[in-house]
Amino acid sequence: MKIYTRTGDKGQTRIIGNDVLYKSAPRINSYGTIDELNSLVGVVIANLSDETSILKDELEEIQQLLFDCGTDLAISPTDKKHEFIFKADNGSVDWLEKKIDEYTEKTPKIQKFILPGGSKTAANLHMARTVTRRAEREIVGLMQEEPINDFVLKFVNRLSDYFFAAARYSNVLDGVEDIQYRNSRPVFR
Amino acid sequence: MKIYTRTGDKGQTRIIGNDVLYKSAPRINSYGTIDELNSLVGVVIANLSDETSILKDELEEIQQLLFDCGTDLAISPTDKKHEFIFKADNGSVDWLEKKIDEYTEKTPKIQKFILPGGSKTAANLHMARTVTRRAEREIVGLMQEEPINDFVLKFVNRLSDYFFAAARYSNVLDGVEDIQYRNSRPVFR
Amino acid sequence: MKIYTRTGDKGQTRIIGNDVLYKSAPRINSYGTIDELNSLVGVVIANLSDETSILKDELEEIQQLLFDCGTDLAISPTDKKHEFIFKADNGSVDWLEKKIDEYTEKTPKIQKFILPGGSKTAANLHMARTVTRRAEREIVGLMQEEPINDFVLKFVNRLSDYFFAAARYSNVLDGVEDIQYRNSRPVFR
Ligand code: B12
Ligand code: B12
Ligand code: B12
Ligand SMILES: C[C@H]1O[C@@H](n2cnc3c(N)ncnc32)[C@H](O)[C@@H]1O
Ligand SMILES: C[C@H]1O[C@@H](n2cnc3c(N)ncnc32)[C@H](O)[C@@H]1O
Ligand SMILES: C[C@H]1O[C@@H](n2cnc3c(N)ncnc32)[C@H](O)[C@@H]1O
Ligand SMILES: [Mg+2]
Ligand SMILES: [Mg+2]
Ligand SMILES: [Mg+2]
Repeated sequence: MKIYTRTGDKGQTRIIGNDVLYKSAPRINSYGTIDELNSLVGVVIANLSDETSILKDELEEIQQLLFDCGTDLAISPTDKKHEFIFKADNGSVDWLEKKIDEYTEKTPKIQKFILPGGSKTAANLHMARTVTRRAEREIVGLMQEEPINDFVLKFVNRLSDYFFAAARYSNVLDGVEDIQYRNSRPVFR
Repeated sequence: MKIYTRTGDKGQTRIIGNDVLYKSAPRINSYGTIDELNSLVGVVIANLSDETSILKDELEEIQQLLFDCGTDLAISPTDKKHEFIFKADNGSVDWLEKKIDEYTEKTPKIQKFILPGGSKTAANLHMARTVTRRAEREIVGLMQEEPINDFVLKFVNRLSDYFFAAARYSNVLDGVEDIQYRNSRPVFR
Repeated sequence: MKIYTRTGDKGQTRIIGNDVLYKSAPRINSYGTIDELNSLVGVVIANLSDETSILKDELEEIQQLLFDCGTDLAISPTDKKHEFIFKADNGSVDWLEKKIDEYTEKTPKIQKFILPGGSKTAANLHMARTVTRRAEREIVGLMQEEPINDFVLKFVNRLSDYFFAAARYSNVLDGVEDIQYRNSRPVFR
């Protein structure tokens, strides 16, 4: 097997359903960024501390789910015989919300913004949070041109809140205190 | 407190001043990238070596200032009662310039471009340098559509030069030599 | 020498050949992202394990070549006296293809997509893979507005496949098994 097929050397590429697009198209951008985020989650996992290694399984599950998101974003809207694999009732958003509630509970209450950082794991999770939000912005860009699977957008929105909660929880596990943004209003209610 | 409010599940979000924008808007992009950069500075801090840990306080100060930048970028231009918090005379650009001068002095002179890398801290600071420049490009994109706080742009421009100087200084501290770009002209004068 | 010249404080900057562009221009974006990728390769190198340190020299060579790509992207198409330095017959794509073949051979065959991650080096190389693809998307964006050096695009396309092969090979070297994407079709042939 050769992974390089040379077919993309002139700037175009295929999506699922056989349309050929420029690589700069919003659709390619959106699942390309999901792939980048997925790789970043790989980096988070590879650098977990002993204390935060309990997050490993769920982060790997998130990698699987991100691949599902990517698949749905890679499907041509004209490919009628293809179904989205990420279903509104697949439970993944509920699953994230439960984790968020659990970690928020285990973390000191805050009213002000906190500096993104702390332990290595926490800092990496804040990176994942912000790259998730970059992916979200690009999906929204795509959505304004073509129909997408709305549920992917909902999942990605919740995922960035999960990463926030998990970052704060990691600081608790690693014994590091969050630092407040000094000019913050009391924004969390 | 629940951090997920579900209000953004359809792709729109609020800024300061109550306008509602698509998440793909240049304004959201600009402070979203500042947030990503801020998280990356968190990663730099979390991975400082013993030798480079003297940079910790100033990097944390930079995180605070990036939050100020983000706030100003998040303010609707139509929100008349809101003032920018990042003032032209707040001394932050001068502060960066002094650091740049100091670190440049403590670093071997160069005429040619150097490969971005070296010690872990230096490599991470080069990442921060280039993500700062990405944020700068997006702020410039926003500026072409709507008025912004010019001083944020000036700060961000200088910040990327600070990260260059700090990266080179970290290599000195960590005892690593910069490698030159072999095809470089003598570009630094 | 002062690296800060303050000339870019208002959002514009010079390229090779003396044109002045907004920093948000596709051209600036394209070599800015190559610079970001180059820095990420610096991070990969700074974090190689003992087992994967045999990749150091070739990754440094890739940094040199990325600088060449950046130079060609920074040249104004109106600068007639300037020649591209990245030539179609410079052997760099063949060099990458040989490495890809070698690493693919040394890696278990796969039919399904794998989760991007594994050892630290492998995870970092997957990040490099996806940022290479982001750079590629931006070069394709530029190409639709202005002529570019086609060979840069070909090199960047192959480079992302190199990073995929090198990531998988690093997992072999570090003794980590790739995890399959559970909903994957047999996509590799
Ligand atoms: C989407 C995609 C990606 C996405 C993955 C999706 C996601 N979830 O995010 C991303 C961007 C991550 C990706 C990455 C890569 N990819 Co990719 N990817 C694709 C793509 C476009 C679709 C793959 C897919 O999901 N197929 C799913 C099924 C549904 O599609 P299908 O097999 O065509 O099936 C259709 C029909 O054939 C039919 N059908 C299918 N099965 C059957 C069975 C029967 C009985 C019948 C009747 C019909 C039928 O129904 C389907 C309906 O449309 C293919 C190209 C292509 N168009 O196939 C490349 C492709 C698989 N990728 C490729 C490569 C090289 C890569 C990368 C290595 C690139 C890189 N350097 O980063 C990485 C590897 C990533 C990893 N971690 O393993 C190559 C593989 C080359 C090879 N040697 O085989 C391909 C073939 C593209 C190419 N020509 O170069 N990729
Ligand atoms: C900008 C912003 C951000 C920016 C931060 C700004 C920056 N510097 O870069 C970024 C992008 C980083 C961010 C990130 C996050 N954010 Co945010 N963010 C906001 C936003 C839009 C504004 C916050 C702010 O700065 N307010 C400052 C003050 C000036 O605004 P204000 O309180 O509305 O005040 C105005 C008036 O009320 C009045 N006023 C204020 N006080 C007073 C007092 C008196 C007496 C009077 C008369 C008037 C008055 O004057 C002001 C003038 O406009 C709010 C939503 C919103 N519109 O408020 C969400 C919000 C605070 N964020 C939220 C969330 C969840 C987050 C994240 C967790 C998201 C994530 N998953 O990443 C992270 C956390 C980051 C962290 N490190 O802690 C939620 C919090 C939900 C909750 N439970 O309360 C909010 C409410 C948005 C939402 N509805 O979902 N955010
Ligand atoms: C492209 C570029 C980059 C690219 C590098 C290219 C790449 N491969 O990716 C990137 C984006 C990476 C970059 C980064 C940085 N850069 Co820069 N970069 C430039 C730029 C635009 C061109 C440099 C170049 O390659 N010149 C190559 C030669 C071909 O150009 P030239 O010297 O002008 O030569 C022309 C003519 O003069 C003539 N010529 C040249 N030599 C001769 C000889 C003879 C005899 C004759 C007749 C004619 C002749 O022919 C050429 C044809 O056009 C210059 C600004 C400029 N326009 O020169 C800034 C510049 C060199 N960069 C600068 C800076 C500060 C940086 C950064 C520190 C910024 C940062 N904070 O990140 C980093 C450092 C990166 C590093 N790792 O070292 C500053 C240096 C300031 C100083 N003190 O000298 C400059 C001068 C811009 C500025 N005014 O601020 N940069
Ligand atoms: C917390 C605040 O962050 C902003 N916001 C919401 N979604 C995104 C995103 N994907 N990227 C950047 N900023 C976002 C909104 O202004 C929100 O109120
Ligand atoms: C050093 C060189 O980098 C380019 N340059 C200046 N600002 C940016 C930015 N934000 N992003 C990418 N490239 C930039 C200009 O061409 C400058 O001359
Ligand atoms: C493997 C699949 O990835 C997609 N693809 C090809 N090039 C890029 C890129 N630069 N960025 C994101 N996705 C890309 C195509 O759909 C290809 O078939
Ligand atoms: Mg949200
Ligand atoms: Mg600059
Ligand atoms: Mg390719």
